[in-house]
Amino acid sequence: MDNTQPTFLLSGESLQDIVQELGINVIMDELILKMYNSFVNFNSDNSIMPVRSGFNYMKPQEGLIEWMPIRDVAKEKVTIKVVAYHPQNPTLHLLPTIISTTSTYDTITGHLLSIIDGVLPTSLRTGAVSAIASRLMAHSDSKVLGIIGCGAQAVTQLHAISRVFSLDTVIYYDIDSNVSDSFRDRTNLLGLDVQYIEGSINDIISTSDIVCTATSIGVGAGPLFEDVKTKEWLHVNAVGSDFPGKIELPKQMLLDGYVCPDYIEQAMIEGECQQLKPDQIGSDLITCLKNSEQYQFLKNQLSIFDSTGMSLQDQVVVDLFTNHAKEMNIGEYVFLENTKTDTQNPYSFLRASKYA
Amino acid sequence: MDNTQPTFLLSGESLQDIVQELGINVIMDELILKMYNSFVNFNSDNSIMPVRSGFNYMKPQEGLIEWMPIRDVAKEKVTIKVVAYHPQNPTLHLLPTIISTTSTYDTITGHLLSIIDGVLPTSLRTGAVSAIASRLMAHSDSKVLGIIGCGAQAVTQLHAISRVFSLDTVIYYDIDSNVSDSFRDRTNLLGLDVQYIEGSINDIISTSDIVCTATSIGVGAGPLFEDVKTKEWLHVNAVGSDFPGKIELPKQMLLDGYVCPDYIEQAMIEGECQQLKPDQIGSDLITCLKNSEQYQFLKNQLSIFDSTGMSLQDQVVVDLFTNHAKEMNIGEYVFLENTKTDTQNPYSFLRASKYA
Repeated sequence: MDNTQPTFLLSGESLQDIVQELGINVIMDELILKMYNSFVNFNSDNSIMPVRSGFNYMKPQEGLIEWMPIRDVAKEKVTIKVVAYHPQNPTLHLLPTIISTTSTYDTITGHLLSIIDGVLPTSLRTGAVSAIASRLMAHSDSKVLGIIGCGAQAVTQLHAISRVFSLDTVIYYDIDSNVSDSFRDRTNLLGLDVQYIEGSINDIISTSDIVCTATSIGVGAGPLFEDVKTKEWLHVNAVGSDFPGKIELPKQMLLDGYVCPDYIEQAMIEGECQQLKPDQIGSDLITCLKNSEQYQFLKNQLSIFDSTGMSLQDQVVVDLFTNHAKEMNIGEYVFLENTKTDTQNPYSFLRASKYA
Repeated sequence: MDNTQPTFLLSGESLQDIVQELGINVIMDELILKMYNSFVNFNSDNSIMPVRSGFNYMKPQEGLIEWMPIRDVAKEKVTIKVVAYHPQNPTLHLLPTIISTTSTYDTITGHLLSIIDGVLPTSLRTGAVSAIASRLMAHSDSKVLGIIGCGAQAVTQLHAISRVFSLDTVIYYDIDSNVSDSFRDRTNLLGLDVQYIEGSINDIISTSDIVCTATSIGVGAGPLFEDVKTKEWLHVNAVGSDFPGKIELPKQMLLDGYVCPDYIEQAMIEGECQQLKPDQIGSDLITCLKNSEQYQFLKNQLSIFDSTGMSLQDQVVVDLFTNHAKEMNIGEYVFLENTKTDTQNPYSFLRASKYA
């Protein structure tokens, strides 16, 4: 009996081929649109999304490996991203801080449908979500984007936000001058017509309309700054805080502004919301987007999007790439699961052998 | 910058090649030995094993997809089995009830080291654990093995137990006569010198020295039998109960005997221990094995091993197959993760393109 079904593999290199072919702006615009739609149409009866969990450790270096599952009832599938965060990777191993793959499973039979790189998708979707949060909460005429932490995530933060605002200035900082020195070069390919200014954290906080923080500040070492006067409408996308004990923003700033988390329960464990009591936290992003008229006031005041990442976001970006890959005939199929056997006999393959 | 590391793929077919080459008895004996060693040397500071969680549902059919993680501190790796249970699979889809793959991750960088079929390993390790539990708790002269539920798991239960006891009789039952009728044929390849008797559940419970229950009885439909007199030293491996609401054994039997779960917290959620209060549950298998002299009394009384499955068991069987595969040059390498890029720039690959 042979009812073996293949698993679709989509490597990082295949994803690059797709982006190369379609163009990075096309991909980002499509991702922002699909992500926005997934948020405003979100239904917790259809998308079942437990709080992620994982292993975190300080030896051999600081690290985290966690799993982010989601079940889509209507699509009859489960998507699980396994994501690793190892901030010493670039320095010690010439590898990205975030390494990840995402698997999808059919809930009819349990078959593993696909395995897809999660490195590029994670940075793209994290950027797309900041763009969506900024479009809701930042001043509509925002021109000055501040970037604190100029690593891999900063590139997609800048890219995504540049797709929804007419930026004229990018002011940026990294604690590692090699990283800040290369930021302009690394983002040249976006072809943005903006002025690049290297600045201090305080310059960035005081002069920006929108700020993205995406640092690898250590556990217990935050916040990145204290007590800086901001434009009254500043919007901050706090992207880096995603680890118990890791925070980027001062508590007073959170108390002064409106804090909108992506996923409250998770943000209270590993986001900026670790610093807050439940009654100090605003509505989550999905609620704000579903009721956007009620939340227009945020455009004129200090607002903070506490971005920790959700498996729903991973499902959207994986579906987007999988669809493009299948249309473009990119990717490969492998037979991984041992289903090529009598369903009642795990040893049936032995019959034809010398051990039969 | 290219520091891409490959992921090792070991398919179900590759595992079959390994078993074919080494022989199923060699594999099972080695697995029982390594599994036993992993239990008696278990150290919860080294092997960090959260209770598994997952999605379970009744539509489109009854099903479960769950993840079973373990971190091995000394080996600097995380092993995650994703396992699906869909009891309608054989009938509706010609697929096994249990479909699974296991992934391992390096805790130094987060790199995905390997993906290996979990279908054959799951049935092998579940058999091996029942053999270990039976060797501890069953009467040393056990000759009669009862099998209730003659599907895929029954084959490896019989095989594993036949490696540690001198069986002379196998008495078996399945609710589906097609499945019971084929059981002898399906296990012929084991070459056992035993008498096969098809019997009723009551015959099995009353005449066996050791019983293995591995049924797909529905949620809320258990137990499989009520109030049957047994040999006073009967040992039962209750393998099938691994789903909230699914039970195989009558509560009175559990109360009359000594119940040893593999993992108490998990067994209370999805095993036979769902029926018990904490003070009605005995020590877990690892505790019993580490202190086996204290538990010799179990050989002369009714005992029940409540087997729900642990990620430690999956780690052992995955390591065993991975080692053999590498020695035998079986398996393949793929480049899945998008690490072939500037660690600070997810778009670096675009530089050479028309979009640069």
